[in-house]
Amino acid sequence: MDQENNGVNEDADIESYTGKETDERVYAQPLLSRRRNTTSQIAIVGANACPVESLDYEIIENELFKQDWRSRNTVQIFQYVLLKWAFALIIGLVTGLVGIFNNIAVENISGFKLLMTTELMLQHQYYKAFVALAGSNLALAAAAAALCAYIAPSAAGSGIPEVKAYLNGVDAHSILAPSTLFVKIFGSILCVSAGFVVGKEGPMVHTGACVASIIGQGGSRRYHLTWKWLRYFKNDRDRRDLITCGAAAGVASAFRAPVGGVLFALEEAASWWRSALLWRTFFTTAVVAIVLRAFMQLCSTGTCGLFGEGGLIMFDVSAAKVTYSVPDILAVILLGVIGGILGSLYNYLVDKVLRTYSMINEKGPATKILLVVTISLLTSICSYGLPWLATCIPCPADVSSRCPNTDVSGNYKSFQCPPNHYNDLASLFLNTNDDAIRNLLSTSTSKEFHISSLFIFFSAIYCLGIITYGIAIPSGLFIPVILAGSCYGRLVGRLFEPITKLDVGLFGLLGAASFLGGTMRMTVSLCIILLELTNDLLMLPLVMLVLLISKTMGDMFNHGVYDQIVKLKGLPYLEAHAEPYMKHLVARDIVSGPLITFSGVEKVGNILHALKMTGHNGFPVIDEPPFVDAPELCGLVLRSHLLVLLKGRIFSTDQVLAGDDVVRTISAFDFAKAGSGKGIKLEDLDIKDEDMEMYVDLHPITNASPYTVVETMSLAKAAVLFRQLALRHMCVVPKSQGRPPIVGILTRHDFMPEHILGLYPHISRQK
Amino acid sequence: MDQENNGVNEDADIESYTGKETDERVYAQPLLSRRRNTTSQIAIVGANACPVESLDYEIIENELFKQDWRSRNTVQIFQYVLLKWAFALIIGLVTGLVGIFNNIAVENISGFKLLMTTELMLQHQYYKAFVALAGSNLALAAAAAALCAYIAPSAAGSGIPEVKAYLNGVDAHSILAPSTLFVKIFGSILCVSAGFVVGKEGPMVHTGACVASIIGQGGSRRYHLTWKWLRYFKNDRDRRDLITCGAAAGVASAFRAPVGGVLFALEEAASWWRSALLWRTFFTTAVVAIVLRAFMQLCSTGTCGLFGEGGLIMFDVSAAKVTYSVPDILAVILLGVIGGILGSLYNYLVDKVLRTYSMINEKGPATKILLVVTISLLTSICSYGLPWLATCIPCPADVSSRCPNTDVSGNYKSFQCPPNHYNDLASLFLNTNDDAIRNLLSTSTSKEFHISSLFIFFSAIYCLGIITYGIAIPSGLFIPVILAGSCYGRLVGRLFEPITKLDVGLFGLLGAASFLGGTMRMTVSLCIILLELTNDLLMLPLVMLVLLISKTMGDMFNHGVYDQIVKLKGLPYLEAHAEPYMKHLVARDIVSGPLITFSGVEKVGNILHALKMTGHNGFPVIDEPPFVDAPELCGLVLRSHLLVLLKGRIFSTDQVLAGDDVVRTISAFDFAKAGSGKGIKLEDLDIKDEDMEMYVDLHPITNASPYTVVETMSLAKAAVLFRQLALRHMCVVPKSQGRPPIVGILTRHDFMPEHILGLYPHISRQK
Repeated sequence: MDQENNGVNEDADIESYTGKETDERVYAQPLLSRRRNTTSQIAIVGANACPVESLDYEIIENELFKQDWRSRNTVQIFQYVLLKWAFALIIGLVTGLVGIFNNIAVENISGFKLLMTTELMLQHQYYKAFVALAGSNLALAAAAAALCAYIAPSAAGSGIPEVKAYLNGVDAHSILAPSTLFVKIFGSILCVSAGFVVGKEGPMVHTGACVASIIGQGGSRRYHLTWKWLRYFKNDRDRRDLITCGAAAGVASAFRAPVGGVLFALEEAASWWRSALLWRTFFTTAVVAIVLRAFMQLCSTGTCGLFGEGGLIMFDVSAAKVTYSVPDILAVILLGVIGGILGSLYNYLVDKVLRTYSMINEKGPATKILLVVTISLLTSICSYGLPWLATCIPCPADVSSRCPNTDVSGNYKSFQCPPNHYNDLASLFLNTNDDAIRNLLSTSTSKEFHISSLFIFFSAIYCLGIITYGIAIPSGLFIPVILAGSCYGRLVGRLFEPITKLDVGLFGLLGAASFLGGTMRMTVSLCIILLELTNDLLMLPLVMLVLLISKTMGDMFNHGVYDQIVKLKGLPYLEAHAEPYMKHLVARDIVSGPLITFSGVEKVGNILHALKMTGHNGFPVIDEPPFVDAPELCGLVLRSHLLVLLKGRIFSTDQVLAGDDVVRTISAFDFAKAGSGKGIKLEDLDIKDEDMEMYVDLHPITNASPYTVVETMSLAKAAVLFRQLALRHMCVVPKSQGRPPIVGILTRHDFMPEHILGLYPHISRQK
Repeated sequence: MDQENNGVNEDADIESYTGKETDERVYAQPLLSRRRNTTSQIAIVGANACPVESLDYEIIENELFKQDWRSRNTVQIFQYVLLKWAFALIIGLVTGLVGIFNNIAVENISGFKLLMTTELMLQHQYYKAFVALAGSNLALAAAAAALCAYIAPSAAGSGIPEVKAYLNGVDAHSILAPSTLFVKIFGSILCVSAGFVVGKEGPMVHTGACVASIIGQGGSRRYHLTWKWLRYFKNDRDRRDLITCGAAAGVASAFRAPVGGVLFALEEAASWWRSALLWRTFFTTAVVAIVLRAFMQLCSTGTCGLFGEGGLIMFDVSAAKVTYSVPDILAVILLGVIGGILGSLYNYLVDKVLRTYSMINEKGPATKILLVVTISLLTSICSYGLPWLATCIPCPADVSSRCPNTDVSGNYKSFQCPPNHYNDLASLFLNTNDDAIRNLLSTSTSKEFHISSLFIFFSAIYCLGIITYGIAIPSGLFIPVILAGSCYGRLVGRLFEPITKLDVGLFGLLGAASFLGGTMRMTVSLCIILLELTNDLLMLPLVMLVLLISKTMGDMFNHGVYDQIVKLKGLPYLEAHAEPYMKHLVARDIVSGPLITFSGVEKVGNILHALKMTGHNGFPVIDEPPFVDAPELCGLVLRSHLLVLLKGRIFSTDQVLAGDDVVRTISAFDFAKAGSGKGIKLEDLDIKDEDMEMYVDLHPITNASPYTVVETMSLAKAAVLFRQLALRHMCVVPKSQGRPPIVGILTRHDFMPEHILGLYPHISRQK
């Protein structure tokens, strides 16, 4: 090992981090918390000491794989392709149905709740109305929190960061498990109905990904639900593709935006992309769109309870005439700049709040529920209390919708006002979030909301949104941001009324765009999602402009909110680009820890010992002189494959090649990757003491052509290789001959900035 | 060399192809024509013996590069980033302006032509009218053909295949030269005005790419137009990014579809994609959208001559109410299936016609012009002659537009009909292509066109479109396909009238989608382009469905039309996926030809000899015993860098390391990659006879960490590496020690199916 840590302050922290050279089964939370904060009080939300494992996207070219490939015939390949599309179809169908179910449930529950409150208000029983509202909110919130705290803690939060990390190659424990799916669906319904400032969009993405993951498990051996050809899906590459489709389907279902879903998957979620995948994702979201459309038509006949009608477009602003001139554009630019700054401030505050909450949540399920209940009460107080600050406004004469409105949804809520008057704040607060956004984006109603009311609502929602994310409920970030943003936009529109002719509803839309750009930092996908939401293509140039400006502003201050959360959760996310300081290091520089290698034919005892003592997931196999002239790198063997081989017990007393014995005893099917946490464990092995001195031939399961880099390759170039090819292990080989044939192995963790800058603290200043 | 060509039929063809192991400066046309057709009569359109060169996308990590990198300070990096965005801005501005100019010119020229014809028709001077129409068409066509044939032959055709190939790493000679740009702009205007069934969309993409390429040349040393920091753009990677932006800007400008442009660049044009690029491309198309919008507003005041008004949406169908039920969907599915088949038939026929034309075009510029003139006459005869077949239809009473219409554009052309009657075929034929499409997509006018007229127009346009592509004019494929498709769709709509309630205008849109899907095989980008063209988001699910079906149908029969043309032109395009047969071969199997290597410190004579005798662009450098213990691979040196080094004449009489001499004499700037065809040539060197025995140290310019694969890696895996990392050279290293440190070099040509299946003809059957 020729690592040169000259002058590195090797404190215990770094030791424990870098010691695991090929060890990826590390525990995300403690690592990160220690690294981030010396007081080590920060726990990570939703990832409390959850094990993180890298995924195997590399094609493992061993003998068994080759044999398996050769045995595939045209029919099997056709079945495989057909199945891929069938899975895409199923994912689309299921995600679409879940989306519909979610919508219907939320509209009915919160509709019932609001109806009750409104009834009591009409009878002037104001205290009872508050109790009814706050009580039902509390009950729903507590139920959601209990589900989350006791059944599936990983269902808390948006889920998009975890899906993003999964598609980057990091599998956090139970993030896509059936229990997570269950809690995500029902928790999301409960907490959206509970009036929290949270959305169902993030959870829908997570739901889509969970559905895809469960479908992609390729049957269950325990329940004898396996077809032979399902095994072709038992690998991480095919699962990744399915989950990408699932994430796209989630967005398509949440926003009713099929093209937006594809682009979201492409721009935000997926780390690797192929054009064939574009095509399949597109198919999935098309299925979602058709399912949604069919149910919308069904529901428009009134069979879905309080669920309203409405087409695929949610917030239709196309009624407004879009013409704009220079002053309008100036106003819009200013809106974009401030929106971007407010968006990045939002990210900053969410980060701070998350860190605080994680300390609270760490204390146990009861504390988690307590926190949720507190926030729920606070939300109820705001929703019910703040409208009292607004003055009653006489109903306008020329308005098409009913005023005052005593319905479940809609504009012009009567609240405490006398007949023919309405309370503008109540129209925003005492509505579902979707309806509030619809009111804020309503066009040709410029005077509907007072400037003061807009300001109060904006402040309240901005703060509530920040303090709500991070509590133990499934909570999307899109809706709070759109809500705050459209209110901000409408406010700006009102303020600029003297100089601009653009409708305030359109300003609302642009405000939402600026906030989304400032927090999420997506461009094309947000653009398309907003278009599909609002059905106004003529706004496109302005929306693009605002997104460009607000993203640029936001990027000056911090990272996008999802990247921030990924980092906070300690998930080792590989960035697409190499950091500048990587150009100053070479691959050899970051190789660390003792390297454990096996011989081509290795003693069972040695293998068991290595598996027990290290957490490494990949071991180099080196052929040595009895078999070859000089030591040479035979390849790389995976822990999971070693376990299968040892379970098969094809041992020999002498150090000889096993020949076809292995292939005859164990099929490639046995080596197919099991679902997360389902593979053979070390404890499952039944190795007797007398076996320990036996030999086992590793050649049939050794990946004979792992990707290698020469030790003098710059780290930047090596990082690009690692990321582009979606590797899990990269072998570093010596430049000159006559030395041991491998210098070390690099894994995802070795490329993390924390690791590199830990080894070379002086380099960070150079940048 | 351990290549094993057992049983390979090594005919002269394969020899000449595979002999050039690292030689990429091969001549595309003769190779391909011989390979494709044993009669060797097929020449390739527009690529008549043009040299093809691979691009260097790999980071060349040599000493000079490292030194240069270390010397960069924050200000320089900031300048670089700023400049990137400034370039994107300029590309957007210029492409937008060219788009506007093109539109105004076409509308005015063809408007004038049609006005003249209509005037003569009104005076019943039918023969004069034909002469006027055919004469002006002929003159315009001849002018376009002359430009193309004499000034820039590579401006012929769509240009999208060449841009696609460039972004895949293949630089065809003069494809992005200023002369090509000039001819593309004016040729496109002339031939669209000449009434050909061609579009301006493909040419606009090519124009955008040319603009970007010229901007990306990084100044000109000849005219002393160089800034020091422009040199950071003197590499193929940054140029590729700019050209991607240019292609997106072209689509955005042609279709007025900014988001569609981004997606087109992503889905069809670019082979490598980074999220940072998405962001910059988006910015470029936003600039285009703003430029277009500003000019549209200017033109709507009537200052642009015959150029009409109209917003960013070209074919507005949003007036139609979109509701559909099961029978509609069945009709749409049938439409998609037949559309897909007709689309792939279109591809097949275009391919056949192109092969025939290339034989004709090969004979010289005069023949080229003659062909253009013939097709122009044929087009004029169809346009003027076929409307006589239509019967005059009485004007409907309830229509908003004028009927009969004697204007330049619009529906309900009077032609030869008595007052209050119109000729429906004339409304389609005697219009610009854009207006014809607009008429076909017009909604709420279901009876406007007779079924027989639609059938005549469809047949004529389908055939004219096929025979027009391939003649020596800039000719886009989008418009012919949309034209034929929308006519087909409207025809189907009319036929299905008894069972469907969907507007025939919407059927026209779906027909266009089905043809586009069937020929171009794009999905998301076409979807968005159609949406932006027609402003109807509610059609989205149906458009998606049709695209999915027609693409699937088309894929059963052949490749997309652009892929077909790329192949026909003999451009070595690297596919994203590895072919199935590649799994049965290893990297070593396709290494061929004698390997030429240099020592770390090599004799000038040897280098010159190698440069003269081979066309190789990369040479392995091997350090040998005086300097190291055993021979080891030092790295890879590029021909272009060798030429610069030899020009610098830093020679020594002994075989010693040059130390910092080289770095002091030659800067990294000198090694910056010159524009296409501009670098130092072998003839430019001034090497005297006495220099031949001197030594030159290659270490400072050797890329010390080229990407390597071990010889036993499967070809499929090696191909993925090659393609994913956008390599030009890949070193194959031996598995065992003690052998020469390099087995061979693989280049783009080695991965071409023609090459591999030529070496192993028996393998193609295995698949």
